[in-house]
Amino acid sequence: MYVKRFRYYNYNLYRTERVILLQMEIKWEDCANGIWKTIIGCEDKFNPVLVMDAAPVYEKLRKLTETNFPQSVTLMEYEITNGKTIIRIPLQPEERIYGLGLQFMKINHRGKTRYLHVNSNPKQDTGESHAPVPFYLSTGGYGLFINTSRAITIYCGSCVRKDSKNPPKAKDNVSDPDFDYTPLSDLIEVVIPGNGTEIFAFSGSSLLEIVQRYNLYFGGGVLPPKWGLGFWHRAPSAYTGDQVVKEALEYRKRGFPCDVIGLEPGWHSKSYPVTYEWSQERFPDPSAFVSKMAENGFKINLWEHAYVSPEAKIFTELEPYAGSHTVWAGIIPDYSVPEVRKIIKAQHRQEHIDIGISGYKLDECDGSELTDFSWMFPTHATFPSGNDGEQMRQLLGLLFQKTTAELFYEVNKRTYGMVRASNAAASTLPYVLYSDLYDHEQFIRALCNSSFSGLLWTPEVRTAQSSEDWVRRFQTVCFSPIAILNAWADGTKPWSYPEVYDIILHYVNLRMRLIPYFYSAFAKYNFEGIPPFRAMHLEEGYNPAKVGELYKEASGFEKTKSWDIFQDEVDNQYMAGDFILVAPLLAGQKERFVYLPEGKWYYFDTGKEFTGGNFIKIEATIDKLPLFVKDGGIIPMIPAYNHVPAKGVPVPLEIRHYGMKSGKFLLYEDDGESLDYKKGNYQWFSLEVNIEDNGKKTGKVSGNMDKFYGSYSEIKWNFIDTL
Amino acid sequence: MYVKRFRYYNYNLYRTERVILLQMEIKWEDCANGIWKTIIGCEDKFNPVLVMDAAPVYEKLRKLTETNFPQSVTLMEYEITNGKTIIRIPLQPEERIYGLGLQFMKINHRGKTRYLHVNSNPKQDTGESHAPVPFYLSTGGYGLFINTSRAITIYCGSCVRKDSKNPPKAKDNVSDPDFDYTPLSDLIEVVIPGNGTEIFAFSGSSLLEIVQRYNLYFGGGVLPPKWGLGFWHRAPSAYTGDQVVKEALEYRKRGFPCDVIGLEPGWHSKSYPVTYEWSQERFPDPSAFVSKMAENGFKINLWEHAYVSPEAKIFTELEPYAGSHTVWAGIIPDYSVPEVRKIIKAQHRQEHIDIGISGYKLDECDGSELTDFSWMFPTHATFPSGNDGEQMRQLLGLLFQKTTAELFYEVNKRTYGMVRASNAAASTLPYVLYSDLYDHEQFIRALCNSSFSGLLWTPEVRTAQSSEDWVRRFQTVCFSPIAILNAWADGTKPWSYPEVYDIILHYVNLRMRLIPYFYSAFAKYNFEGIPPFRAMHLEEGYNPAKVGELYKEASGFEKTKSWDIFQDEVDNQYMAGDFILVAPLLAGQKERFVYLPEGKWYYFDTGKEFTGGNFIKIEATIDKLPLFVKDGGIIPMIPAYNHVPAKGVPVPLEIRHYGMKSGKFLLYEDDGESLDYKKGNYQWFSLEVNIEDNGKKTGKVSGNMDKFYGSYSEIKWNFIDTL
Repeated sequence: MYVKRFRYYNYNLYRTERVILLQMEIKWEDCANGIWKTIIGCEDKFNPVLVMDAAPVYEKLRKLTETNFPQSVTLMEYEITNGKTIIRIPLQPEERIYGLGLQFMKINHRGKTRYLHVNSNPKQDTGESHAPVPFYLSTGGYGLFINTSRAITIYCGSCVRKDSKNPPKAKDNVSDPDFDYTPLSDLIEVVIPGNGTEIFAFSGSSLLEIVQRYNLYFGGGVLPPKWGLGFWHRAPSAYTGDQVVKEALEYRKRGFPCDVIGLEPGWHSKSYPVTYEWSQERFPDPSAFVSKMAENGFKINLWEHAYVSPEAKIFTELEPYAGSHTVWAGIIPDYSVPEVRKIIKAQHRQEHIDIGISGYKLDECDGSELTDFSWMFPTHATFPSGNDGEQMRQLLGLLFQKTTAELFYEVNKRTYGMVRASNAAASTLPYVLYSDLYDHEQFIRALCNSSFSGLLWTPEVRTAQSSEDWVRRFQTVCFSPIAILNAWADGTKPWSYPEVYDIILHYVNLRMRLIPYFYSAFAKYNFEGIPPFRAMHLEEGYNPAKVGELYKEASGFEKTKSWDIFQDEVDNQYMAGDFILVAPLLAGQKERFVYLPEGKWYYFDTGKEFTGGNFIKIEATIDKLPLFVKDGGIIPMIPAYNHVPAKGVPVPLEIRHYGMKSGKFLLYEDDGESLDYKKGNYQWFSLEVNIEDNGKKTGKVSGNMDKFYGSYSEIKWNFIDTL
Repeated sequence: MYVKRFRYYNYNLYRTERVILLQMEIKWEDCANGIWKTIIGCEDKFNPVLVMDAAPVYEKLRKLTETNFPQSVTLMEYEITNGKTIIRIPLQPEERIYGLGLQFMKINHRGKTRYLHVNSNPKQDTGESHAPVPFYLSTGGYGLFINTSRAITIYCGSCVRKDSKNPPKAKDNVSDPDFDYTPLSDLIEVVIPGNGTEIFAFSGSSLLEIVQRYNLYFGGGVLPPKWGLGFWHRAPSAYTGDQVVKEALEYRKRGFPCDVIGLEPGWHSKSYPVTYEWSQERFPDPSAFVSKMAENGFKINLWEHAYVSPEAKIFTELEPYAGSHTVWAGIIPDYSVPEVRKIIKAQHRQEHIDIGISGYKLDECDGSELTDFSWMFPTHATFPSGNDGEQMRQLLGLLFQKTTAELFYEVNKRTYGMVRASNAAASTLPYVLYSDLYDHEQFIRALCNSSFSGLLWTPEVRTAQSSEDWVRRFQTVCFSPIAILNAWADGTKPWSYPEVYDIILHYVNLRMRLIPYFYSAFAKYNFEGIPPFRAMHLEEGYNPAKVGELYKEASGFEKTKSWDIFQDEVDNQYMAGDFILVAPLLAGQKERFVYLPEGKWYYFDTGKEFTGGNFIKIEATIDKLPLFVKDGGIIPMIPAYNHVPAKGVPVPLEIRHYGMKSGKFLLYEDDGESLDYKKGNYQWFSLEVNIEDNGKKTGKVSGNMDKFYGSYSEIKWNFIDTL
């Protein structure tokens, strides 16, 4: 696939030595069905694709729709000037731009400038984030990914060129009622530091298919171990092993589910900087501690960061590979050097993996150098690899995740953990992003946004403003990649607000009951690239302009300026798996608008029927998280065990069906914890409901029944009465 | 003066092509007494010194103390790597860093990273500002100025190098009570985009002398026209000429002082983008309007910005010199091209200056490309001069100010106006910075900080949360470079809160009475480089570490971490002229701490005596702005006229003296509005009080008594009874 562009820039040059002009044809190379790449200028050799080194899932990519090279991208132009590479792609008037990683402030970036810089503290709406991903989706029908370790800036129609083909008209802010402080631009401009870059273009018959292509090309979505979908708790930082055991057993005593207990800095002999070695004082016998926890059904997750204490045993080995600066007086090993990963892995293998640690929480790999707590190495830091501070900062999250994930893969185990920073091509990584700097509304928006960029995000619960806030946050986190109470700083427990304990228990139990449903959704992420939790924008038939009009009608909300037009995106509800639409409420809300796509929808709890294709206003008391099931939706459920049952423990299965349409659900099963599924050791079971003309419903399971009954002791079909 | 540095960097290179190594000697060239410069690498040809092109005041510089080349700067090292120039200078443990332009969040930048990028909306503590100045003062006894049009980053001891000579010790955040998230670094690192830079070093026997050198080397401080020190009002944006006249006459009717009325966007035929032409509808006869206002003692100030409407008559002429992008659909003329300035000046001269306009308010020359309202041209914009968007953005404030100031100078008039952006070497510019994005406390801190960097700042009043807030803001603004009510958006009047009108009138009258005092303070800015309003840090004997200890003792405030140590700076009080210390209160405060330097101090209102060298806690009801006069302080005052009397109108003079020390005040007089003072047409009168052993006080005026009595009809000495 070749698109030829010739263009001559004719500047009226005042100081000629400042500008380098380039005009060259852009050659697009076919990568896979619907995926192309090109290199312009001299590309960034250190980049996410290199770091991740994931094999494309060609077999699945071939099965997607055949699509043409995206029209907008044929019009791409570029120049390389003053050490910057600038790409330009036209925008249509109604075009929306989604993605760009873990964004908290907006769904649609049209009209905004986005600086995709890793930042732990992005309080303003700048595009900076823990996981800024240089990949965007356009409603013009394509995705564009800049494969770079640099912090790029993308002007999503936020600046207007003088040579614009469709320039905005000049107005008068005193007399024109439709005066607009941010006139619409007809162009995306992407500015990439450096003299060139590699670019990938993705097409698709829908936005979801573009996302699938992006995920599948970079190896498919992660399949977590089944236990990762249970409930998580992180213990206070300075707890001893005995205190942790006591806290864990309290869960069992109360019959509150919990699969994973996380240890915070205090498990290290020294932390900030860290040693990765156990504190003799708090954890005198780590192996016995982990075993005791395992006997009670708990996995252990270890907190760490990347800055190594002079007191660490591996310090001397790592020192030659350290960067020019220190963080908290710890060295910064250059994770892009293979020897560094080898040293760290050897130590981790021996002291963590071999005694049964299940995973890590990778903290502080984002950082913020400009705000009050300047605890990151600077942009100009240098590293033995030749990479600079900017590059290392942008990709440290990927390197850190990949290194620690490999530890488990090497012993044929899956892992699942938490991480504070990520980047592109990251969908295979068994880590979920977290940070507590945002409000509940922003948490939900991030859950929507993460689905555009191959990321997972948990709206973790730490503490709350009130028992109502506590409940509302728990309801959301139970419908997210990790259902966690992160109590490291606050020492909270699920029972911290006794007056709402029953509600909390109900929703955590519901999470546990939905494990087969969620696990199958993750399997689709793995095999098909379909995100398990995703923005409404990825649902069939979602038309943002139409949705905006509907919202205006339903709510009476007035759009007056062009910079409002693009803010009518649905950013506070999302899909969990194929059939459940989650519409959380925030503390203080008694009612909310929900957008239901075309068709019938049913309340998960009561079966009450709603007609989609519009916004509806619903009321919900504190004990209700509004969950809507699609017509024909099939939901496999198990009882709420106190931790996820291991393979081979037969459990009864309830298969719910909602509505008046026949339906099908693909239930995924494997051993739940090894990588054997990669060798084909897994099974999809088809759960089908057929409705006859007389309304009679029958359920059928297809697939290898022996295997199916090896997982489930009995089946109960539950055809929900819908009203 | 030569300082030789040789240094070889020995990297363990993994990818050799990424790093350019440089080692060269640094040659410092003598510029003036106590001022040196050097060029390392290939310097930025477009820079503040070039733009300002101001003649150093060598005669005054010669009179300052003779000082040596600063010791810390002899240890300066640099490298030029990957298109960045990095400078390193050691820091002593207790060393503070002040300056860096119009900063709102901190006085002392030690331990902080400062990104000196022009930004209209710097909500976080990043160093970004309307006027970020790449000049800092170190309590180590020097000032350093990077002469660049680039946005530099300065790590003020906020990152630690692995090869640090005095590295912080690694600690443990679980067990060490003095664990510190931001360990102290022993190094400043400055990162300048580009392959070199020009650097100026300043020494001095005090911080004030370093500031004086900086100001004098760049031409000395501005001397405003006398009327500029009166009271200012800005009319609502859409007012017609008749409405403005009516509003102005309301001032006269009420006897409320006012010298300047500002017109906002609506005076243009079109605004956003602008035409610079009068609205025929609202101002059918501009000349008659300006004359009528002049007859009533009002000067007219015109709002404008730099983005030109296609409907402007000069549009066609300017278009060939426009940048690559537009702002609000207006072109961006390249102000660094002389032809552009010529075109704009010709139009302004004819349509504004020649009919008697007194000055401008230069808006929107800062901009914020990353936040919600993206109304600035992007960093990658290109301009006919060859300068890029970053450079034009950093220096547009200077270019815009200089161009418009010259209009007045060319007709032998002074001007005084307001501006939203500035940069270095700017002390000669007749503009005062403003913005309403900050709270009252930040307004005061900016007033302190502006004095370190050759800037003026007005904590303008717009509206208020309450009548108390209204009063407190008025009290502060009356002791600032422009006493203004900026009512363009809110339509407020000084009498908007009738219940506190008497207090407002009192303080504005006090401002008017202090005109001789303030005018003389500005003359010292002009001739000596001493800022008229300034941080306590510039006062003799101010020792920040000592002040921190004193504050701790007085207030019981506990410093626990090293990142607290440097936050004990006095940032909420300042000096106005030589003798008055201003300690404003904020709404809600009934009392406050004030730091009084060594010696006796007296309440301005009552003469009540205080002993300095410590913090005192004072109470102040809403009608009291705490003003303290230094022992021996002499304050010349006139009656409160409704506008500043023109030269030749004789007015009675009251000369106050406070305390028990003999004293002297230099009263400056000239014609108050032309540039003739530059040819020597001015006079300093010495007002002296001598105290005999028996306590008898006598006052004496030295100088040309004929001239003095040409300005003043009578003198009343007022020896304030001090208690």
